Amino acid sequence: MLIPENTYINLYHDQRNQHLVRYERNKKFLTGYGVVLFPPDLKYGTPLKSESGYTFYALKPDTSRVSKKLKRQTTIVYPKDAGLILLELGIHSGSHVAEVGSGSGAMTLILSNMVGNEGRVYSYERREEFLNLARNNHTKYGLFDNVEFTLRDIAQEGFIDNAVDAVFIDVPEPWNIIHHAYKILNGGHPAGILSPNIEQIQESHRVMEETGFLRLRTFEIIKREIMVRRGKTRPRERAIIHTGYLLFGDKIEKIETETSNE
Amino acid sequence: MLIPENTYINLYHDQRNQHLVRYERNKKFLTGYGVVLFPPDLKYGTPLKSESGYTFYALKPDTSRVSKKLKRQTTIVYPKDAGLILLELGIHSGSHVAEVGSGSGAMTLILSNMVGNEGRVYSYERREEFLNLARNNHTKYGLFDNVEFTLRDIAQEGFIDNAVDAVFIDVPEPWNIIHHAYKILNGGHPAGILSPNIEQIQESHRVMEETGFLRLRTFEIIKREIMVRRGKTRPRERAIIHTGYLLFGDKIEKIETETSNE
Amino acid sequence: MLIPENTYINLYHDQRNQHLVRYERNKKFLTGYGVVLFPPDLKYGTPLKSESGYTFYALKPDTSRVSKKLKRQTTIVYPKDAGLILLELGIHSGSHVAEVGSGSGAMTLILSNMVGNEGRVYSYERREEFLNLARNNHTKYGLFDNVEFTLRDIAQEGFIDNAVDAVFIDVPEPWNIIHHAYKILNGGHPAGILSPNIEQIQESHRVMEETGFLRLRTFEIIKREIMVRRGKTRPRERAIIHTGYLLFGDKIEKIETETSNE
Amino acid sequence: MLIPENTYINLYHDQRNQHLVRYERNKKFLTGYGVVLFPPDLKYGTPLKSESGYTFYALKPDTSRVSKKLKRQTTIVYPKDAGLILLELGIHSGSHVAEVGSGSGAMTLILSNMVGNEGRVYSYERREEFLNLARNNHTKYGLFDNVEFTLRDIAQEGFIDNAVDAVFIDVPEPWNIIHHAYKILNGGHPAGILSPNIEQIQESHRVMEETGFLRLRTFEIIKREIMVRRGKTRPRERAIIHTGYLLFGDKIEKIETETSNE
Repeated sequence: MLIPENTYINLYHDQRNQHLVRYERNKKFLTGYGVVLFPPDLKYGTPLKSESGYTFYALKPDTSRVSKKLKRQTTIVYPKDAGLILLELGIHSGSHVAEVGSGSGAMTLILSNMVGNEGRVYSYERREEFLNLARNNHTKYGLFDNVEFTLRDIAQEGFIDNAVDAVFIDVPEPWNIIHHAYKILNGGHPAGILSPNIEQIQESHRVMEETGFLRLRTFEIIKREIMVRRGKTRPRERAIIHTGYLLFGDKIEKIETETSNE
Repeated sequence: MLIPENTYINLYHDQRNQHLVRYERNKKFLTGYGVVLFPPDLKYGTPLKSESGYTFYALKPDTSRVSKKLKRQTTIVYPKDAGLILLELGIHSGSHVAEVGSGSGAMTLILSNMVGNEGRVYSYERREEFLNLARNNHTKYGLFDNVEFTLRDIAQEGFIDNAVDAVFIDVPEPWNIIHHAYKILNGGHPAGILSPNIEQIQESHRVMEETGFLRLRTFEIIKREIMVRRGKTRPRERAIIHTGYLLFGDKIEKIETETSNE
Repeated sequence: MLIPENTYINLYHDQRNQHLVRYERNKKFLTGYGVVLFPPDLKYGTPLKSESGYTFYALKPDTSRVSKKLKRQTTIVYPKDAGLILLELGIHSGSHVAEVGSGSGAMTLILSNMVGNEGRVYSYERREEFLNLARNNHTKYGLFDNVEFTLRDIAQEGFIDNAVDAVFIDVPEPWNIIHHAYKILNGGHPAGILSPNIEQIQESHRVMEETGFLRLRTFEIIKREIMVRRGKTRPRERAIIHTGYLLFGDKIEKIETETSNE
Repeated sequence: MLIPENTYINLYHDQRNQHLVRYERNKKFLTGYGVVLFPPDLKYGTPLKSESGYTFYALKPDTSRVSKKLKRQTTIVYPKDAGLILLELGIHSGSHVAEVGSGSGAMTLILSNMVGNEGRVYSYERREEFLNLARNNHTKYGLFDNVEFTLRDIAQEGFIDNAVDAVFIDVPEPWNIIHHAYKILNGGHPAGILSPNIEQIQESHRVMEETGFLRLRTFEIIKREIMVRRGKTRPRERAIIHTGYLLFGDKIEKIETETSNE
């Protein structure tokens, strides 16, 4: 499987020496272990010797790896959370999704990869520098041309009117987005929120119930890495133990309360 | 958004009273809270009163919900694990994936949904009853006709020869599958293993290293549900706290060890 | 080591068949696996055959085991939490401790065991039935006669005036106890609170800061059991994953704010 | 409550500026926030102004705090683990305990504090530098003169013969200690092992079963700190997520297997 030029590969020596780098024929790339020369025909999985004699491999970068290497100015959505978000939001190839808070574009990329050519991601961001960052990251690493990046303060201006199958919200005041999300969501379809603080979730939960969301559910995901080594297998000692809480709910058509109709 | 006939909906009253049921016009469905009559035109999110006066809603079932409701004879891959598997295996719309151990088809469904019309899932199972179960679950709940179910003992017979972008292995002796997986994987692409016991992971880790996999990494995912209630917010007291370990590695072209010098 | 009469032993066959039972010479005790006859001289660790031929052992019950077997009408303090409470409250042999909310007496027992003959536990409870339960459990399983059980609503009436080295609070509205605890605590010494809900901790945290507590710290403890079995080692699948949050703070002499007004 | 001279206090300004320091009258102590002068009569909880105008408090150091501040050359037993060890080993005021692997003396101190004047801790260590370190830490921070430190390689030489109520083992090859521990333990009483790697636990588990221990149980304890802050309450992001596994078992008198009786 020849690697097309301008594709990003994971040039891997070991855990601490790996680089997400664009493949170009005859390019020289400087690693901490010497210069690696990219041959004119390169296949994934092929060993490459650096001038200093170290072996690197051209690996296909998985989504998790790309996420972690994004140029970023914000906290990214971590793979452990992104994975559950995909499933709780019912994302599939062909889904139409709105995202509020492009941030560095980590979740945008994941959504883009999953919905593919027949799907669509509408990614909104109110800070221009983040929007540009997210767009650049998508340009570099994205597989599909299916994202519309829009500079817009959803809390103030609401969404541009596209019906979507799912909304994902990752902003500091998610509760201000909820009634806007309600409007563009297809009935019976889910919205999801990621927030680091429990108060953000509590307030969003209250507003979701009020607005017309049902089946509310909140999760947190803890990921541990296990070091598998002969005779010395154990979880990694230090790790990220909290990123955020995930709140999901499904849009329903609210029934008028029957209390009075005089 | 009108629900097409024969689509499965999540008929939801509350957490304990929800049903994954096929929508048919004028069908009567018996719930624990009385019979619900499906109207000829039903939209997602619409409230439906049961004859006993309880309100149900026609919700779009998300992947996580469907997974949990599958008819099953095996332990299923849980959404918390499935999400990370998708990202570590670099799955996207259009991916070609092989799965060993169809089981009840939970992971098959998720893979099928993600790779879509342009992708392909090759799902292998050596026990006929599981294969039928997985196929039936896919027929009922799947969105895409992109899965090939094959009755085959991979450990004995190896794969049918299709080059794939990722392999997912969920069988009791995963180490017997690894060298077969190596053969059909595209170079630089990943294989993933899910196993409940640490010894399965240790042995698979050893065999992956031997066979030609690099960048080995092992994780476990713990999911907690948070009960968000006014003045009484807390994690759910009892939960599943272990499902399995996840081991991933990327195929490389092995270099001959330089020990010999013929 | 001969077991004194009237001591409680853990009569153990296996994990599912173990009994906390009072040893009396020549007593017959009915288990699910037949009657066990207690010999006149019994040593810890000795095997005893039931009439049906099953082997039981007379084990010394550890604190953790006793806790779990207490007759109870309330949620008990779990060993995983009790252990950290001991250390964060600086409990040692000889400590004087006040406890608010005797509950079923699980924590009372643990405190009593640790502070010993030279220490003192003042255990307050406002519901008579709980007080009696806690007292009975202490009478049965306690090692030291060092606990004063008092029926009293601390929120309303405050403590009986005994200076203590530590206060432990386990009631639904802990914030109402804090200023009372402040009065009886020795300066620079800690109070601790156990509550299941985050809002209880948030409100208590606010009141502790206001009242004159410093070095506030909040923890939660997750305990997993690992099933160690040849080739099948893994964490137990289902478990208690939340009991409560633990909040600690140290009493300081509050400085008058210097805003004051000549 | 006047602080006796030469007692260690926790001189506390805030989380990042706190010092475990010996109180002496009129001593000057240099902090990062200026010099603090200790008055001739100092009570716990009293505010002290540094020359630079910052307020410090003389707090009673709890066991958890002391543990973390020990001079150390080894990994210490963390309070979260120590707490459960106390309860699973049935430690109480008056217990006699043997410890193998004094290390830096963190667990020795905790055991010493709990068993008090009527109890006894036999702490063994085979490396002289660790033994001295542990002894010095006990001399500085211990409350009771109840520890016997002995330089001895238990795996080679076995214990000095004192019957004990509990044995705690924290060495790299715990399985070599188990049959020695069996000899000095009172029947029906527990031994406990702390090890970072699962293989150490698996091997120790096997040897314990063989040697005559029953009711084997293995745990791991995860502690999370919760940052309670108005509107921004959440678990701390990064933390220690693994220290070790805890294995416990109770000594029984082994029955001869009835297979042969020639």
